[in-house]
Amino acid sequence: MSNDKKAKKTAITPTRAENYAEWYQQIVRAADMAELSGVRGCMIIKPNGYGIWERMQKDLDRRFKETGHENCYFPLFIPLSYFQKEAEHVEGFAKEMAVVTHHRLKAVDGKLVPDGALEEPLIVRPTSETVIGTAMAKWIKSYRDLPLLVNQWANVVRWEMRPRLLLRTAEFLWQEGHTAHETYDDAMAEAKKMHDVYRAFAEEVLALPVICGEKTANERFPGAVNSFSIEAMMQDGRALQAGTSHYLGQNFSKSLNIQFQNRDGALEYVHTTSWGVSTRLLGALVMAHGDDNGMKVPPRLAPWQVVIIPIVRNDSEGDKIHTYCEALCSALSAQTYAGEPVRAKVDRRDIPNTEKKWDWVKKGAPLVVEIGPRDVEGNKVCVQRRDLLDEGKQFLEREAFVAAIAGMLADIQQGMFAAAKTFMEERTVTTIKTRAEFEAYFSKDADNSFVSGQGFVRAKWSGDMDSLALLDPMGVTIRCVPFDQDGREGTCVLTGKPATQDVIFARAY
Amino acid sequence: MSNDKKAKKTAITPTRAENYAEWYQQIVRAADMAELSGVRGCMIIKPNGYGIWERMQKDLDRRFKETGHENCYFPLFIPLSYFQKEAEHVEGFAKEMAVVTHHRLKAVDGKLVPDGALEEPLIVRPTSETVIGTAMAKWIKSYRDLPLLVNQWANVVRWEMRPRLLLRTAEFLWQEGHTAHETYDDAMAEAKKMHDVYRAFAEEVLALPVICGEKTANERFPGAVNSFSIEAMMQDGRALQAGTSHYLGQNFSKSLNIQFQNRDGALEYVHTTSWGVSTRLLGALVMAHGDDNGMKVPPRLAPWQVVIIPIVRNDSEGDKIHTYCEALCSALSAQTYAGEPVRAKVDRRDIPNTEKKWDWVKKGAPLVVEIGPRDVEGNKVCVQRRDLLDEGKQFLEREAFVAAIAGMLADIQQGMFAAAKTFMEERTVTTIKTRAEFEAYFSKDADNSFVSGQGFVRAKWSGDMDSLALLDPMGVTIRCVPFDQDGREGTCVLTGKPATQDVIFARAY
Repeated sequence: MSNDKKAKKTAITPTRAENYAEWYQQIVRAADMAELSGVRGCMIIKPNGYGIWERMQKDLDRRFKETGHENCYFPLFIPLSYFQKEAEHVEGFAKEMAVVTHHRLKAVDGKLVPDGALEEPLIVRPTSETVIGTAMAKWIKSYRDLPLLVNQWANVVRWEMRPRLLLRTAEFLWQEGHTAHETYDDAMAEAKKMHDVYRAFAEEVLALPVICGEKTANERFPGAVNSFSIEAMMQDGRALQAGTSHYLGQNFSKSLNIQFQNRDGALEYVHTTSWGVSTRLLGALVMAHGDDNGMKVPPRLAPWQVVIIPIVRNDSEGDKIHTYCEALCSALSAQTYAGEPVRAKVDRRDIPNTEKKWDWVKKGAPLVVEIGPRDVEGNKVCVQRRDLLDEGKQFLEREAFVAAIAGMLADIQQGMFAAAKTFMEERTVTTIKTRAEFEAYFSKDADNSFVSGQGFVRAKWSGDMDSLALLDPMGVTIRCVPFDQDGREGTCVLTGKPATQDVIFARAY
Repeated sequence: MSNDKKAKKTAITPTRAENYAEWYQQIVRAADMAELSGVRGCMIIKPNGYGIWERMQKDLDRRFKETGHENCYFPLFIPLSYFQKEAEHVEGFAKEMAVVTHHRLKAVDGKLVPDGALEEPLIVRPTSETVIGTAMAKWIKSYRDLPLLVNQWANVVRWEMRPRLLLRTAEFLWQEGHTAHETYDDAMAEAKKMHDVYRAFAEEVLALPVICGEKTANERFPGAVNSFSIEAMMQDGRALQAGTSHYLGQNFSKSLNIQFQNRDGALEYVHTTSWGVSTRLLGALVMAHGDDNGMKVPPRLAPWQVVIIPIVRNDSEGDKIHTYCEALCSALSAQTYAGEPVRAKVDRRDIPNTEKKWDWVKKGAPLVVEIGPRDVEGNKVCVQRRDLLDEGKQFLEREAFVAAIAGMLADIQQGMFAAAKTFMEERTVTTIKTRAEFEAYFSKDADNSFVSGQGFVRAKWSGDMDSLALLDPMGVTIRCVPFDQDGREGTCVLTGKPATQDVIFARAY
C-alpha cells in the first residue's frame, strides 16, 4: 500500500493504528454483527453476525456427526449441590455465576418483587460437566454403553464485570461436547481428535491459522487433567483462545459417580472429555480479518458471498437492469462452492448506491458486483473483491465471471488464510533468549501493540510455576506448550535455568 | 386388525387403552426421546428426540427465511422493569418466572450461598416481546426500516408445578418470531401468513392435521389483540395447541415506545406480531402417531428413515452380509426423498437381533430392513414398514426396493397424515346441540377418553364470556373459533341463546 493510499479516508474511524480497541467496537457496529443490550453484560447478535454463526454451526455440526457424536439438550439450570461435588470446578466458576433463587413474582405496595424462594438455589449453567455427568451416571452401566459421545448447542452464562462485545459477555452461545470412555487412551485420543477438528475448522473455514498445544497447569479448565487449545493471533498481536478440548480424567466420574462394568466384570470409573467453541469466534474473525474499511468475511462463512447492486440512474433503464441482475443472481446461485450453492443476492434497497456499496464493504461481503446500463449492453459485470479493495474494480465478461465464481471465492478464502498466516509468522519472535530481551519486547503499552508490532514470543521455559509471577506486570501469559517441539536444550527465557520445552508467550483476549 | 392380533403382546406396557397417560411416559422412554432430569421440572432431550427436533428446526427455518425473516439472538435475561411495562403481559407470566437475584457464590461456614445481590432482579425469559421490543425501539427510525422481520431459536423458562415430559416443562426449546410493521393490515397479514406456515409445516412434515382458528379473548397470549392457533387432536381425543401466531397491535409498541416516522413525516407506533412453536411438538408427535408398539416417526422427520440390520448367525457369513448391507445402505443414501438424500444406516451394535429390531420399532424408524444369508444369495431384502407392522414383512428384490424407496417413504408420510386426519374427523362431533347432550358427551373421566372415544365438539357458541364457567367442571375449554364458518344461525350449545359462530370445544394439553 502506498503512502498515498494510506492517507485516504477509510470507512472505519478510528483506524486500527489510531485506536485498535475502538476500531473493534466500530467495526462490529458498522458490520451490524452485534451490540450490547440494555441487559447488563448481555449482547444481541444481529442478523449479519448470527448468519455467520449459523454457518459455523452447520460446518462444525457436520464434523461432530462425522466423528460419531449425537446432539442432545440438557437443563439450563444446575442445582448448586451438583456443582459443589467437584471442588476445583466450583472454585473456578463461583465468582461469575447467575443464581436463580425464586420462581415467581408478587406485588408488594404496587411493586413486583421476587417470591416463591427455592429450597436450593439454581445456577444458570456456565458449562455443563456436572449436569451432563449426572445424566451419564444414570445412563452408563457397562462397557457396552461406551464410548458415550454427545454434544449440545446452548447458551451459557458467566457473569462479567467488564464485558467486551462478542469476546467476553455475560451470556454467550456455544457448543459443548461431552464424552465418556473406558480407558485413558480412548479419552485422550478423543480429546486430541476434537482438538484437531477445531484446528481444521479454524484453518479451512475461518481462514484462521492457529497454534495447537497444551495449556499449562495454571491455565487449565477447572477440573481438567489436560487442556488443549488452539490459539490464534489478532491484528494487535494478542492471542485469542479459539477453542479448547479437555481430558477430564476421572475427576468428574469420581465426584458424580459415573461407573461402568468393565470387560472383566469389575466396576470402574469412566474417563471423560469436554470441548467447546463459542460465539467469541465472531470476535476473532473481526480482529483477524477486518481492516480499516470494515469486516472481511471468509467466503465459507459469508451469509452472502456475492451482492449485486443495480445502478439505476433513470427510471426508463430500471427494468432492463433489474432483469439482468436477477438473471446474473440465478446463474451464480446455480454454481457450487465448497459443496453448496453460491449465495448471491440482488440488493434492491431504496438507499443511495454509494452508501449501499460501502454498506457491503463494511459488512465484508467477499464480492460486490455493480451493474449499470453499459454493463447490460456489453454483457459485462463490474466486480469488486473485498480482499483487493485497493486494487479497484474489475470489468469482466458476464459468462466468464459466472464460470469463474467458485474459483474466485476459493482464491479469496485461501488468500485470507495465507495473509493471516504470514501475519502470525512475521509477528512470532523466536530469537528472544533472555529476560531482558523479553521485557524489552513487551515493554510497550498493550494498547499500542497494533502499531508496535508486538505478537507472540516463542521461547524456552523451565516449567517453574513460580516464574509466571514475572509475567504479571507485563500482562503476558503462556498461551500454550505447542505440540511441535524441537526438543533442543536451551535456557528458560524467564529464569535462565536449563529448559527444553518451547512455549508461546503473549498478551491475550 | 383381527381380535387375534389385538390380544398379542405389545412392545409398550401399558397400552393406550389400559392407561393412556402412563403409555405416553413409557413410549417417550422406550423411543429414547427425552427424560425428566434431576433438575426440578427440567428435561433432557435425548439424541432420538433431539434428532427429530433438528429436522423440525431445519424445515421451519427454511420456511421462515423464504418468507423474509432473519435469525438473531437476544438476551436470556430480562430486567424486571422491561417486563412491567406491559401490564397484561407481566400479569400473565408473573406466577411462573425464574428470577435471578445474585451473580456469584461465597462460602459461609463451608457452605456456598448466593452472593452479590443484583440491584434489579433479572427474569429468565418466558418469552421475549419486551427485550426484543426494546431493541426494536432503538433500531426503528423510519418507515424505511419496516417491516422488521426477525426470529430466534432459544430456550425459555416457565416455572411449572406439575411438569409433563415434552409437553409442559419448566424449560423448553422454541423459536419465536417477532416482527414490526407500518400498518394494521401489514401486521395482521404477517400474523396470518405465519399461522399458515405453521399449518403447512404441521400437515406436510409432522403429518399432523390441524384446525386453524382464532383464540377466544380468555385464551389469548398476554398482551395480544388477536391470537391464532393450530389445534391438533391427540389419540385420547384431547386437543394440543401446536403453534400460535399473535397480532399484538400497538400494545407493546406503546409500552416500549417503538415509534417510526411514517411516509408523511409524522411519528407513529408500529404494529407488532409474534409467533412460536416449541419442543412440545415432540410430545404431539408421540401422542398423535404412536401406537402400542412404540413411536412412529414421519419419514420427513426421522433421523434414520431406513435401518438395516445384518442377521449374522455364524462368523463365516459375517463379511458377506456386512458388505451387502453397506452396499445397500450406500445405494439407498444415493436416492433422494423430499429433496434430501435418504437417511439410511446399518446397525452393527453388539446386541441380539430381535432386541435390535424392536428397538427400532419402538423408536419409530419408518423402515427396518433385515438381511440374512439367504437375502444376500437371492439379492433380496426383507422389509418391515413401521406403519404396517401388523401386515408383517415384505420380501423384495434389492434393486426394486432401492428404486422404490422414495415412493415408499412418501407413502408412509402420506398414510400417517391420512390416518390422523380420519381419526380427527371421526372424533369430531358436530351433532350436539344442547347443553344436556354436551355434558353427557364430556361426562366421562378425562383419563378414559382414549377408550370412551371423546374428542372435539364443534358447536355454536354465543360469545358470552360468562358462559365459559359452565365448562370448568368438565375441564373443557374452547380451543378456537375455526376460520371456516358456515355462518348459519343456530343456538349456543351452552346457553341456548342465538349464535352463528362455530367453535371447537375440547379437553386440552
